[in-house]
This record gives sequence, C-alpha cells and structure tokens, in this order.
Amino acid sequence: MFITFEGGEGAGKSTAIKRIVARLEEEGYEIVLTREPGGTPIAEEIRNVILDRKNTNMDPRTEALLYAASRRQHLVEKVIPALKEGKLVLCDRFLDSSLAYQGGARGLGIENVYNMNLFATEGMLPDLTILFDIEPELGLARIAANSQREVNRLDVEKMAFHKAVRQGFHDLAEKFPERFFIVDASKTPDEVFEAAIGEIERRLKK
Amino acid sequence: MFITFEGGEGAGKSTAIKRIVARLEEEGYEIVLTREPGGTPIAEEIRNVILDRKNTNMDPRTEALLYAASRRQHLVEKVIPALKEGKLVLCDRFLDSSLAYQGGARGLGIENVYNMNLFATEGMLPDLTILFDIEPELGLARIAANSQREVNRLDVEKMAFHKAVRQGFHDLAEKFPERFFIVDASKTPDEVFEAAIGEIERRLKK
Repeated sequence: MFITFEGGEGAGKSTAIKRIVARLEEEGYEIVLTREPGGTPIAEEIRNVILDRKNTNMDPRTEALLYAASRRQHLVEKVIPALKEGKLVLCDRFLDSSLAYQGGARGLGIENVYNMNLFATEGMLPDLTILFDIEPELGLARIAANSQREVNRLDVEKMAFHKAVRQGFHDLAEKFPERFFIVDASKTPDEVFEAAIGEIERRLKK
Repeated sequence: MFITFEGGEGAGKSTAIKRIVARLEEEGYEIVLTREPGGTPIAEEIRNVILDRKNTNMDPRTEALLYAASRRQHLVEKVIPALKEGKLVLCDRFLDSSLAYQGGARGLGIENVYNMNLFATEGMLPDLTILFDIEPELGLARIAANSQREVNRLDVEKMAFHKAVRQGFHDLAEKFPERFFIVDASKTPDEVFEAAIGEIERRLKK
C-alpha cells in the first residue's frame, strides 16, 4: 500500500508522520518512509537545482518539469521496488504537491500539470493521501517559531500563494474523494495524529 | 525566424553551423546562435545532471523530463526574447533530439515524448530544421579521430542505439516534411555547408 502525506507549510506533517511510523512498526508493518528526492542521488541533485535560492528566475513550467523528473527517478528506484516487496510505503509529499503548488498556486492549471506528470508516473496514484489542512497564517507562524527547520525559498513566497496552495489541495480532495482524507491540522498534535492513524488503520484492515 | 540543427553524433553539425553563422552575418542578419542549455545558468545546471557520467542508473523518462525542463528555461530566457527582437535564432539541437533519442531510440515513443514536451514548448516549433544525416559508423569514426571534442556518456552507447536515433530523425522528417530539410552529411564539409545554407537562404527570401 502506498500512502502519501500532503499539506501546506507548517501543518505539522513531519511530527505526525514520525508517530505514524512508530505506531505502524509496533503493529508489525514493514515500512519504507520516504520523501520525494528520497535519498536517490539523481533525484537529490534535481531537488538541489529546484531549491537553490539563487535560481529566482526559474520559470514555473521548468520547476514543474524538474519535480516530475525527480518524482520519476524516486518512483523507479525506491517506491515501486518497495511496493513489489510487499512493504508499506509512506511518502512525505508526492504528485498532489505539484498539482496544488504549480498547477493551482502558480496558475499552470491542475489538469495541465497532471497530464504532464502522467509521463512520470504512468498513471500510478497513491492508495491513500492524508491532507494536513491548515490556515496558511497559522502554518507560517509555526515555522517561524521552530528554529530547527530552515525556511526555504518556497516558504518566503507571499501569503496569497499559500492560500492558493490550500485551495488547490481542497480542489484535489474534491476531485479524488476516495483517495483523500482531510485532517484538521489546527488541532493539537495528539488529535492530528489520532485522526491520521485512525484512517490509515481503517484502510489497512480493509 | 527560428532554425534548428539536428543529427547524430559526428555529423559535422558544429563545423557547418560556424560557416552558416559567418555567412548570414556577412549578409547583415542579426544572429543568436545557441544550443539547448544556452548558457542560462538554470538550464546548464540541469544539463550537468543529465550528462554526469556517474548517473548511469538514470531512468529514460527522468532523462526526457530533464531535457524538457532545460528546454523550457532556455526558450523563456533566450530564444523567445531574441525572436521578439526580430533576431534570427539558430539552435544546435532542440525538441527533435528528444523525440529521436528518448522517444525513438530509448523506446518511450515519439508521440509520448512529444505530448510531454508540449508542456515545455506550449506548441512552439522551429520554422526550419536542418537534419545532418549520416551513417552512425561514419559519424562515430569521425568523433574518434577528433581529439578536440570530448566523448560523453551519450557517445559511448551501443551502435544499435545510434541507428535507432537515425531512424527516429527519418520518421520525424517524414512527419514534418515542410519543416525538415535533410542534408547528406557523408559528403564533404563544403558540400554539406552549401546544401544547408542554400535552404536557409531560400527560406529567408520567402
């Protein structure tokens, strides 16, 4: 089973994911926890080009193509082999981030970015996507308060951008109601974790 | 006008292009000569990832997406602005290389790679594409004899690959007969140059 975690900046994804992994391992599942460059050297190199602060004049379509390239390499080298071995693959951000950020917020169109990404994914989608949903103001306030996590180029974009990202995720959740599960990430870490793990366990038992 | 130059390894493209530029400048045209990363820093960074010899496990779809990303950035930063200023843009390799190499020779399908590239090009095509057509055996023998040009990862691929690339270019020339002009690159450098410049001048006079 392939589960992805999505959400805006500062939604508490990382904290929740750590607890989810610990719980599922206790329950005996073989977990592969990954994020999109996934430690595969080629995909990491690509990510470095995307996040390089000096690349301020990067065209939005260039950015979307680079994310798709990184996604492809990560899928082929890491996600698909783990799924074939019967493991439970948990991925911190995936296709839906490209759709919400580049397709929605950067105005390229969710449909356009989705169609281009089909070249990378060959139609593969997660079985379950947990969306950590939060008001951008609250999310960014959390990041500022957290000195452990470096603020990157994406963080410093304007608030209107983050609001558009959130709208993009909502549109996707409406488009794929079976696949998406929305967690209210403004709640306490305990409540967020319980909502997410509850849904994952429900799906695993099916 | 946007003119691209295509062909397999060792077809004598670079030599012919130098003479073409010199002739057109004599005739008073304002020329921008470029190749796909085009000296734009982001596109060069992407090209470095593609051509890095240690990236031997790069998936063919990752490679095709990276070429499309580099293409997009080069188009936006260099090609389109020059065309808007009324300049004559000459580009050493463009979309058709992706179609022949990744689409044809690597087996991804010319149609698939073309459709994905529409995201990068938004449908933009060259006005004229000069194809320097040569037997792969002859092309690679020329490269080996020429110590000035470093042999890269793409060069050392198998001969069957180069034959498939050539077939891909032939398929494209058949698909776009108005846009393509085929030059027999096994001929002498003078003959190759005369054939290419003759067609370019004919199109410029139209």
